[in-house]
Amino acid sequence: MSLVTLLTDFGTADYFVGAVKGTLLRLAPTCQLVDITHQVPPGDIVWGAHVLWAAAPAFAPGTIHLAVVDPGVGGSRRILAAEANDGLYVAPDNGLLEAVLDTARVVSVARPDLYLDGPSQTFHGRDRFAPVAAFLARGGAAETLGPVVQDPVRLPSWKPVREERGARGQIVHVDRFGNLVTNIPSGWLPPGTAFRLKVGGQTELHVLASCYADLPGSRPGVVPGSLGLLEISVQGDSASRILGSERGAQVTLRLLETGSKDF
Amino acid sequence: MSLVTLLTDFGTADYFVGAVKGTLLRLAPTCQLVDITHQVPPGDIVWGAHVLWAAAPAFAPGTIHLAVVDPGVGGSRRILAAEANDGLYVAPDNGLLEAVLDTARVVSVARPDLYLDGPSQTFHGRDRFAPVAAFLARGGAAETLGPVVQDPVRLPSWKPVREERGARGQIVHVDRFGNLVTNIPSGWLPPGTAFRLKVGGQTELHVLASCYADLPGSRPGVVPGSLGLLEISVQGDSASRILGSERGAQVTLRLLETGSKDF
Amino acid sequence: MSLVTLLTDFGTADYFVGAVKGTLLRLAPTCQLVDITHQVPPGDIVWGAHVLWAAAPAFAPGTIHLAVVDPGVGGSRRILAAEANDGLYVAPDNGLLEAVLDTARVVSVARPDLYLDGPSQTFHGRDRFAPVAAFLARGGAAETLGPVVQDPVRLPSWKPVREERGARGQIVHVDRFGNLVTNIPSGWLPPGTAFRLKVGGQTELHVLASCYADLPGSRPGVVPGSLGLLEISVQGDSASRILGSERGAQVTLRLLETGSKDF
Repeated sequence: MSLVTLLTDFGTADYFVGAVKGTLLRLAPTCQLVDITHQVPPGDIVWGAHVLWAAAPAFAPGTIHLAVVDPGVGGSRRILAAEANDGLYVAPDNGLLEAVLDTARVVSVARPDLYLDGPSQTFHGRDRFAPVAAFLARGGAAETLGPVVQDPVRLPSWKPVREERGARGQIVHVDRFGNLVTNIPSGWLPPGTAFRLKVGGQTELHVLASCYADLPGSRPGVVPGSLGLLEISVQGDSASRILGSERGAQVTLRLLETGSKDF
Repeated sequence: MSLVTLLTDFGTADYFVGAVKGTLLRLAPTCQLVDITHQVPPGDIVWGAHVLWAAAPAFAPGTIHLAVVDPGVGGSRRILAAEANDGLYVAPDNGLLEAVLDTARVVSVARPDLYLDGPSQTFHGRDRFAPVAAFLARGGAAETLGPVVQDPVRLPSWKPVREERGARGQIVHVDRFGNLVTNIPSGWLPPGTAFRLKVGGQTELHVLASCYADLPGSRPGVVPGSLGLLEISVQGDSASRILGSERGAQVTLRLLETGSKDF
Repeated sequence: MSLVTLLTDFGTADYFVGAVKGTLLRLAPTCQLVDITHQVPPGDIVWGAHVLWAAAPAFAPGTIHLAVVDPGVGGSRRILAAEANDGLYVAPDNGLLEAVLDTARVVSVARPDLYLDGPSQTFHGRDRFAPVAAFLARGGAAETLGPVVQDPVRLPSWKPVREERGARGQIVHVDRFGNLVTNIPSGWLPPGTAFRLKVGGQTELHVLASCYADLPGSRPGVVPGSLGLLEISVQGDSASRILGSERGAQVTLRLLETGSKDF
């Protein structure tokens, strides 16, 4: 029995998710479906890429991840299938698979024999992506889906920059609780090190806590987060709201000399 | 193993969906559950009927569709079970099954032996609909559920009117992306035909594209949609917001003579 | 095959739910997952406890309920596993299991051998709760998880007070439809009894109906609800909005002498 996850920007109020699941189960009746999310903001590839990167490692190897955030549906963008160490991925070629493109074997799907005769070019989630994922769920080999791709579309690099006494990065996600997830690895801020962390050029934080409940009062602080990245958080409240910071905001970390009070 | 889909207006923050699923799995432990949606706006039968009509064809024949948008719960409205070509349906008799009523064999469920002894008349989703669906999921025959119904409640007809050089219809759904789904079949606007399409009596559109990405800039246009119906869309934005149009708005399509510039 | 339900405040737009489900299915591949809700307002233990209490009885005995509303994650709060008559529960020790604490056998989970090596102390849902639930789903015995707990954290009592000619209680939940769910058992207001019900000290209701559709016009009334509790409702509208009442509002019920017009 194959496990197929779904990540889309379809929301859950329309027929889209139902139609994709119906198609998957019609074409691969024994597969098991798990939603990662359908609440990616419409067309927000960066959001989708982040959530897919974050969630996928929890699943067993061999899991098939079907990801459809696809503003270019029906145009010339390719459909990719990727074999990564931790699973198989099917998604549009628009950066959604950014997290696995460096290491996966990626092909451009060219299998009109698998596609459904839909009445339009606007719902490849149902008419193309689902049948391709069902093909994999039935045990089909990814390498038979099409030619290898060397030039998949990439997202702008969001890699942090490590500096001698600190780092520069940015907010890469704001979660439901208002935590600001940075792209700076938690390991770059060793416990016990005095530091200053600036968000958006203005706010300056200097408290590190190992969990939200240990943050002082209603003041924002830094917490090593569940993705191995530093987060900016407020106990019982939204750091995003309190700091007025959103995804994309610049983050600067300065490690202080022992005894130093300068930033 | 039976497949049971769920479509309700219960939302996902309360206990309603959990209670329905628990009941289904308690009474039919091997059935597989798939959500179509629980985000039908409260009591919005037309929304529910549209989404059910749109999603159901993707599922394999034999699928059981449990649909509960039921403002009349506990009153005199009947519970219907319908055998259609593409599956079995259980729903209140209020128009929610509009899409299959013309062709399905419909019975009025009268099986108090199946119902649960609930503490109220306000949650037939759990106490009546779920046990009836579980009965079908265990292989029970729909015709044993009750007498045939000849006069199910129907929705006001939303059929479009075809005219010699055009059509009149309306917006039947607004999706998450703000696309305005009309009830005019895409085939009534042959590619290459000059046309004018009016929404709500004021806006006039004249561009047809096969996918959202081919629409020009931020101007609304017409796209053959995934349900075989014309949609009014804006690339990367909400046509509903930009045009100020909602479900129910009138749509007029005029096909132009070659070379004509008149509407 | 074990059934595992999930109830969290994680929302559905982030990676949290996907990571928990991936972990459960990786560690207990044959378990079946059912969402109760992930829309508990962030950190709202009372909301979560209510929904869990309401939904759990619908599930077959032996069901495993994984509940994570956990503002104290990473701090000193314990993780509880509870064996109740109707199922097994895993949750933080913060009152979320209030409904079963009086009768269940409760242990404090102390099994670092089961926990995952997460990169933080902020996501025990993935790193501790899910592995513990997976252990139970694989058939592990709850009593091997840790020592019995005699002093679990309790919620403030929301038990109603019965009086000679009435009762005092409060609003314990507001559902999607705006129904105000009280904690007063429906049986305390026998049908045919004249009564006055006050909400929030001001509004006075005197109509009882067995279902929403039987309520008069757009005026609020009292309906015996699906949890065996009196609800305050308005037909086709939100009683919460119309009455301006929220969870926690005081409710006073007075049963009137036959013929009496006094409150």
